[in-house]
Amino acid sequence: MPQQLSDHVRLGDDLTSVVILDQTLLPNEVKYLTLREPEEMFEAIRLLRVRGAPAIGICAGYCLAALAQQRRDLPSGEFAAQLHRLSAYLNSSRPTAVNLSWALNRLGRLAHSMADAAPAAVAAALREEAAAIHKEDIAMCRAISEHGLTLIKDGDGILTHCNAGPLATSRYGTALGPLLLGTERGMNFRVFADETRPLLQGARLTAYELDKAGVDVTLICDNMASMAMKNGWVNACFVGCDRVAANGDAANKIGTSGVAILAKHYGIPFYVLGPTSTIDLSCPTGDDIQIELRDPEEIRSKFYVQPMAPAGVKCWNPAFDVTDHTLISGIVTEKGVCRPPYAQSLAALFR
Amino acid sequence: MPQQLSDHVRLGDDLTSVVILDQTLLPNEVKYLTLREPEEMFEAIRLLRVRGAPAIGICAGYCLAALAQQRRDLPSGEFAAQLHRLSAYLNSSRPTAVNLSWALNRLGRLAHSMADAAPAAVAAALREEAAAIHKEDIAMCRAISEHGLTLIKDGDGILTHCNAGPLATSRYGTALGPLLLGTERGMNFRVFADETRPLLQGARLTAYELDKAGVDVTLICDNMASMAMKNGWVNACFVGCDRVAANGDAANKIGTSGVAILAKHYGIPFYVLGPTSTIDLSCPTGDDIQIELRDPEEIRSKFYVQPMAPAGVKCWNPAFDVTDHTLISGIVTEKGVCRPPYAQSLAALFR
Repeated sequence: MPQQLSDHVRLGDDLTSVVILDQTLLPNEVKYLTLREPEEMFEAIRLLRVRGAPAIGICAGYCLAALAQQRRDLPSGEFAAQLHRLSAYLNSSRPTAVNLSWALNRLGRLAHSMADAAPAAVAAALREEAAAIHKEDIAMCRAISEHGLTLIKDGDGILTHCNAGPLATSRYGTALGPLLLGTERGMNFRVFADETRPLLQGARLTAYELDKAGVDVTLICDNMASMAMKNGWVNACFVGCDRVAANGDAANKIGTSGVAILAKHYGIPFYVLGPTSTIDLSCPTGDDIQIELRDPEEIRSKFYVQPMAPAGVKCWNPAFDVTDHTLISGIVTEKGVCRPPYAQSLAALFR
Repeated sequence: MPQQLSDHVRLGDDLTSVVILDQTLLPNEVKYLTLREPEEMFEAIRLLRVRGAPAIGICAGYCLAALAQQRRDLPSGEFAAQLHRLSAYLNSSRPTAVNLSWALNRLGRLAHSMADAAPAAVAAALREEAAAIHKEDIAMCRAISEHGLTLIKDGDGILTHCNAGPLATSRYGTALGPLLLGTERGMNFRVFADETRPLLQGARLTAYELDKAGVDVTLICDNMASMAMKNGWVNACFVGCDRVAANGDAANKIGTSGVAILAKHYGIPFYVLGPTSTIDLSCPTGDDIQIELRDPEEIRSKFYVQPMAPAGVKCWNPAFDVTDHTLISGIVTEKGVCRPPYAQSLAALFR
């Protein structure tokens, strides 16, 4: 896996900032940004400078810890109030990925439990907690990769959508984890990466990561997946997830549900890979997952030399979709592979 | 329909050239090109300056007529030999659409039948035949539009892929024909236009044509079709076709087969619309249709401010795919709506 990217989200050396790799500039430029102001942090998440559900959670944790450190000299009451307000602000940057609120809530509960401690001590504890989230994610990705690797064999063709590799997480990634781990062990895969319109995470990030890691990757437009499957080139589909409902419905990058329907049509197994922190048992079904709608200009003109659609034309630009649990062959977490019925197998993970 | 576009392919006033609207520049620029040399004509088709199966056929007819007019002072034998060579050359510009060879063969048969006539007379006859192909296409599109309109009702949501409107044909178009005709009659439709990567014909052309014609059109990325269908917004899918095999398998823009599979999954009828000249009974099934593979740079970097994938990454770029006949609810030609089994209903069209 690309060594220089493994720390693409980290706390600044001054402890009051967060350093991220700006993923919107890849693959053309490798540039790190230092985030210090809450507005910079909010924008970094909203504009997808840092993206991928697990990475967003890690980044949000470090951001709140850095903001706490900046405010460590405030009186306790004012410190707690500001922390609460800043957490809610960061949490409002994107609605769909559960990891964002999961990480912020985890730090919030810790801060709340230390109400009598000095702000500087709370800030230090938050810093440790954020680092723990990061460290746990590395271990989780490794475990997901091991479990995922049991589902495929040397020589397989794997189709993936969007980016659920190291850049979306830490180290191995989720959906790409088994492929990177298997490659380290001398296995060979042939990966088809959907480019993933409108923001092209598949072209810019997945193709980039796999290419750097020496994995045989072929970039395709999203609408070419059907033919790749029909040609017999795809043995399994591996995708990440932003939120999984209690019944197994999985929200992930827009287009994922289409890939799942195609896979079912062609008789190809379709696997969702993600940490248990992505599973939201408080969410009964996919209908209860809020889908983020983004700027129409992402479709009309972003990236393009000129606008590539009429200026006034309406666009519908959902960032995610929900894949019905009936289309999912397995949900792979760090604890193993869950099989249908998911209402039971997912709940069992938390017992 | 956009008045100024209705003659987007025509013979030049000097009779020795062809004037086309350069569709690669839309929607940002409306620019007409004069094609005089065989190489210019070949490139115009290969680079999709003129595209859409019926429009390619019309253009090829005018091109051969113009080239014949240029050579009308040659000795008969030399004239016939050059015409034969030029026809084969133009025919090699793109492999998938049957209309290209259909139009060229039609003119070739006419020239052959006039072997004893003076070259100038043959050139004049070819000019008339090319104009007849154009005129017939207008009438066919009108008839297809009428038949297609019987399949939908006022207020329906229609999803379309790529561009099969006036720019792809003449006047009404095929897949967009019923929508334009219905709109003229005061009906309202809500159209979802797949942007259609990599060349964005849906964004650049379909959204442009429908918007100009006052049709309610919403542009989506190809991977958003699944959610639009799931939301209940799509009552039918209308697509064009580049070649239909005897069993009903239909080659059309890459991604069409994926739309058909999604439509089947969601229980939405999926219709293919095109003139009978697109039906190739000599082609038993879709497996016998040659699919054009195009330049990987169309995926990696075309249109983009910067390359949007790593420079060295492999790309697979098929221009078309084949939709299995089992996924098609009906094939609409100028003669009416064919229903399964297509081996019978398509063959009956030619009896």
